[in-house]
Amino acid sequence: MNELRVDGDRLLRRLRELAAVGATGDGGCERIALTDADRAGRDLVVAWMHDLGLDVSVDAIGNVVGVRAGREEGPPVMCGSHVDTVARAGIYDGSYGVLSGLEVLETLRDGGIATKRPLALAFFTNEEGVRFVPDMMGSLVYAGGMAAEAAHDVVGTDGARLGDELERIGYLGAQACPGPVPHAYVELHVEQGPTLERTGATVGAVTGVQGISWQQIDIEGEANHAGATPMAYRRDAGHAAAQVVTFVRRMVDAMGGDQVGTVGKIDLTPNVVNVIPGHASLTVDLRNTTESGLQDAEARLAAFLDELAESERVTVETRQLVRFEPVVFDPRIVDRVESAASELGHRVLRMPSGAGHDAQMLARVCPSGMVFVPSANGVSHNPAEYTAPHELVAGADVLLRVLLGLAEEDA
Amino acid sequence: MNELRVDGDRLLRRLRELAAVGATGDGGCERIALTDADRAGRDLVVAWMHDLGLDVSVDAIGNVVGVRAGREEGPPVMCGSHVDTVARAGIYDGSYGVLSGLEVLETLRDGGIATKRPLALAFFTNEEGVRFVPDMMGSLVYAGGMAAEAAHDVVGTDGARLGDELERIGYLGAQACPGPVPHAYVELHVEQGPTLERTGATVGAVTGVQGISWQQIDIEGEANHAGATPMAYRRDAGHAAAQVVTFVRRMVDAMGGDQVGTVGKIDLTPNVVNVIPGHASLTVDLRNTTESGLQDAEARLAAFLDELAESERVTVETRQLVRFEPVVFDPRIVDRVESAASELGHRVLRMPSGAGHDAQMLARVCPSGMVFVPSANGVSHNPAEYTAPHELVAGADVLLRVLLGLAEEDA
Repeated sequence: MNELRVDGDRLLRRLRELAAVGATGDGGCERIALTDADRAGRDLVVAWMHDLGLDVSVDAIGNVVGVRAGREEGPPVMCGSHVDTVARAGIYDGSYGVLSGLEVLETLRDGGIATKRPLALAFFTNEEGVRFVPDMMGSLVYAGGMAAEAAHDVVGTDGARLGDELERIGYLGAQACPGPVPHAYVELHVEQGPTLERTGATVGAVTGVQGISWQQIDIEGEANHAGATPMAYRRDAGHAAAQVVTFVRRMVDAMGGDQVGTVGKIDLTPNVVNVIPGHASLTVDLRNTTESGLQDAEARLAAFLDELAESERVTVETRQLVRFEPVVFDPRIVDRVESAASELGHRVLRMPSGAGHDAQMLARVCPSGMVFVPSANGVSHNPAEYTAPHELVAGADVLLRVLLGLAEEDA
Repeated sequence: MNELRVDGDRLLRRLRELAAVGATGDGGCERIALTDADRAGRDLVVAWMHDLGLDVSVDAIGNVVGVRAGREEGPPVMCGSHVDTVARAGIYDGSYGVLSGLEVLETLRDGGIATKRPLALAFFTNEEGVRFVPDMMGSLVYAGGMAAEAAHDVVGTDGARLGDELERIGYLGAQACPGPVPHAYVELHVEQGPTLERTGATVGAVTGVQGISWQQIDIEGEANHAGATPMAYRRDAGHAAAQVVTFVRRMVDAMGGDQVGTVGKIDLTPNVVNVIPGHASLTVDLRNTTESGLQDAEARLAAFLDELAESERVTVETRQLVRFEPVVFDPRIVDRVESAASELGHRVLRMPSGAGHDAQMLARVCPSGMVFVPSANGVSHNPAEYTAPHELVAGADVLLRVLLGLAEEDA
């Protein structure tokens, strides 16, 4: 069994075939959740699941689960990810984890290997959250964090109702949510960051998912003429916003550890060359692997904004956009990933995930973990997203080994 | 003659009548250059010029000049401004100077007063530069700084050719450009800044116009995932842009004097909450009353940008958008404004103009100057633009006195 390996060529071929669905012509693809392209991608994967003889079911939020029976009954060991994408996406994010799971199951079939526990392959609806919010919606509903009926009533950026779109594309399934609790869940995914590449590691044993705090900050100053307004009389919302940006960087550097912080969005009003900005709207994205660290960062930022309002004579309002506590993956699964990768000769790095993943929703209900493979230059959500073929195959072999271990576990 | 005063009610009534043309319903008005609204505003003022018996001519760039004969022949003493506006403008910027000139001429007619030199009232085309660039175009062409033919070929933001629009609205005149050189030029205008109000002065004797340096700065970093990219690996164009903003403020504060600096516009790409900005485009507006000061500011900024490119590992490109040297108004006219206002009992402040005005173009060819009246809260280019009625009338009386003095000057 230690010599068992996936068929790398078959995995890469399937990745190319799925990437052709919604191909953007520049190496990327686009299958935004519950569009016709998403349906076509789903249909292709479901056809492969049927080819493999899996017992395929679709649930009330459109999650698809294919089960391969074990030697014994009971909750399956589940792997999976998603097949929806952002706009102008790369071809690996999500699809790689799903097709690697498929490849693992096919390898087991070809090898005539029956596992003790059943194995399940899932792809979850609307992981990306581009058209319908929140993201990771399908796995959230699967894990019982949101009612399917509430999800159905979500209206997309294009005005479409999610439930109607599910029905339209034929993926409003009969299986109830929350879904059956797996024995364990493992997700293989591209890193979407530069850490593996920069450190020379080839496999990441993901210890958890950073907690996320998003806030929008609105700063009201006074729009005035850039020439006729002496500096002493200014209430410059743009200058105040810039100070938030530089503060966030200083704070994060001072905190160190896994704390990161980003101002990704700044909108000035009126945003013209010769008018002092009267209003600035910006976002701050703070992430940390510990809840206490995240709260510390939030508190430091809040204190700074109070000082800023005074020193710049502006009013500052904040609004929380998103708040997730950090997720800590099951240590047993992290250990299994680390040892499986080591046994296969990889340099493994224990690392947090900076991005959100379906695994963090499954972690609410069962022992969960993730395997990362390198993303060239840390690029994702972009047609330039790239992981070398041998790295893709290596990750699938790690997944195979981890799933096999979990599937033989005692209760 | 020292007892002569304008008819304040008539001036205020005309301001209201002109403001009704293109009224925006919120106290403001909009007559963007060479639109139908601009034509309607022009037609109203030209009718008033004819009512007053002025000799009205229109030149090749659509500037309108009405002349009242003097006791002697020769170059007239000219006053004026513009009647075009920005989008959603206030009702005083430009119009106030034109209608005050009209009021002065009517006051002289009503008083049966013949000046030695002729007096001329002008309104210049496209001072605001909203639809067609450059701004102050009509006075620039009048002063010989740009050929009328070149101006005709300027294409507006809406794709319209300026010459075609001039013809369409009936203001492609026969008078050649550059125009006849006046004996002197005086422009009355609202301050568009808070300095008079904050210092308690009621009239500004404008010493010149700040030189202007506008540049666009493009910063190229690397767009990456806000969660998955450790701080050490970032090339954050937004953070670099914010440092430019805070540097400009620090530099200006350190330079002191009349130096001002503004970052009015920042555009990040992709400008979303969870992506490190890969590109930032921002503008820097620097102004100073001395050319050496302005060059100093430009050099300090350039040096900072070099350091920034290195420290943030980004590429920085700059492009000059606008560059005007400072204009120094004729000391004789500044003195006349100061003494006329003092004689009328006003507290006068010698001050530079932070905004550009047609007077700076006329200053290329004849002794020129300006009179400022307060702008409430320094607000302009906004329906909230406001100057109290008694301040408006006071400014017109100062203009009357200055024009009378200049009109009696020997050669």
